[in-house]
Amino acid sequence: MRLHGYFRSTAAWRVRIALNLKGVEAERSFHHLRKGEQRAPDYLRLNPQGLLPTLELDNGAVLTQSLAICEWLEETHPEPALLPRDAVARAHVRAFAQAIACDIHPVQNLKVLARLRALGQPEEVVTGWARDVINEGLAACATLIEKQSGPFCFGAAPTLADLCLVPQLSNARRFGCDVSVWPRLLAVESACLALPAFADAQPERQPDAE
Amino acid sequence: MRLHGYFRSTAAWRVRIALNLKGVEAERSFHHLRKGEQRAPDYLRLNPQGLLPTLELDNGAVLTQSLAICEWLEETHPEPALLPRDAVARAHVRAFAQAIACDIHPVQNLKVLARLRALGQPEEVVTGWARDVINEGLAACATLIEKQSGPFCFGAAPTLADLCLVPQLSNARRFGCDVSVWPRLLAVESACLALPAFADAQPERQPDAE
Repeated sequence: MRLHGYFRSTAAWRVRIALNLKGVEAERSFHHLRKGEQRAPDYLRLNPQGLLPTLELDNGAVLTQSLAICEWLEETHPEPALLPRDAVARAHVRAFAQAIACDIHPVQNLKVLARLRALGQPEEVVTGWARDVINEGLAACATLIEKQSGPFCFGAAPTLADLCLVPQLSNARRFGCDVSVWPRLLAVESACLALPAFADAQPERQPDAE
Repeated sequence: MRLHGYFRSTAAWRVRIALNLKGVEAERSFHHLRKGEQRAPDYLRLNPQGLLPTLELDNGAVLTQSLAICEWLEETHPEPALLPRDAVARAHVRAFAQAIACDIHPVQNLKVLARLRALGQPEEVVTGWARDVINEGLAACATLIEKQSGPFCFGAAPTLADLCLVPQLSNARRFGCDVSVWPRLLAVESACLALPAFADAQPERQPDAE
C-alpha cells in the first residue's frame, strides 16, 4: 500500500490519522503542492483531479478522495471503528466530517486562493477570505457537536469527525483565526493529540516537512 | 420525514433522487436561497451551517449534508443499493461523488459567488470562475469513469455517483460550460433521466419552482 501525500495537505493528513488509528502500514510518496508536483503527468494518471491524497493498494487499485479512502479503511479494517454503529449517529459523524471536507477546506485550499490572487486580489484579501470561510465553518461545527459528550467530537472515541477537525484547526491558525472562541473544539484537539495516532500524523513529523 | 430543500439547490436535488430511488416518502419544506431564508433562526436551529438540504426524521433526529443523508438512506433502506458491494468499487463511487460534492459544487455555489461579487468582481468574472471550476472538475470526473461500463457512471445501475452528476451537469449548463465535450457524462445523464426517480427530482418539477 502506498499513500501519496504532502506534509501540509490537510486531506492527506486525515488519511494519515486513519491509517495510524487502524494500525495499517503504507509506504509514502510525496508531491510538493506549492511546486505543482500534483500536476505531473504520472501523478495525474493515478489521480485525474490532481489532488492529494491517493492510496495505491497492493492489488493495483487506486483510491482517491480522503473521505472515500477513510470509508474504505473502515470497511476493510473495522477495528477500531471510525464510525458509531447506530445509523443516525453515523450520519451525524459523517455530516460533521463533510461540513469540513466539503464546505470549509475546498473553499480555502491553495487552489482557490491561487484563483483569487490571479484575479488581482491583494494578499490580505486572500487571507481574509480563508479566515472568513474557516470562521463561519468551524462556528457551525462547534454547534453541530454542542450536545455531544466529549472528550472527542462524538463521545469517548475518535471518529471520522475528529480526523477532519484536527487538520482544519491547524489551517485555522495558519490563516490567523482566533481559535480561542471554540473551547470545545480545542478540547477535542487536545484529546486527539494525546493519542500517538494523531500526534504522529502532524505535518512537522512527516519526512517531507520543511 | 421532512426534507428541507430549494428547487434549484443541487445538494437538495441529490437527496430528492435518492429518496425517489429508494421509494421513501418525505414531506417537503422550501427555503428560498436567493431570499436568504436558509439564514432564518428557526432553520439555523435545524442546520447550523445554514445550508440545504436537511432531513428531519420521524423520531426527531435531524440529518444534514447531502452525502451523509444518502449514506443514512443506504444503511436504513438498502434496496435498491446506491453503492456496490465490493469495498474498492464502493470507494470509487464515493470518490466520484466527493469529486463533485467537495471539489466542484462548494467552490461554485451561490455563497462563494456572492463572496466574489462582494470583492467587486464583475459578473463575467464571477460566471467565469464557476465555469472554470466546473470545467476542470467534470473533466476529471469523465476520466474517473473512462474505464467503467455504462449506461450509468458505474455500470448497469445508478449509484451515489449518478445522483451527484446529474445536478452538476445542470449547473454546468447554467454557467455556460460546453457540456458536449463530455459525451460519456451526457450519456449517463440520458440514462438517468429516463428513470422516473431522476426525472421527478428535476428542479422544474418541484412545487417551489419559479
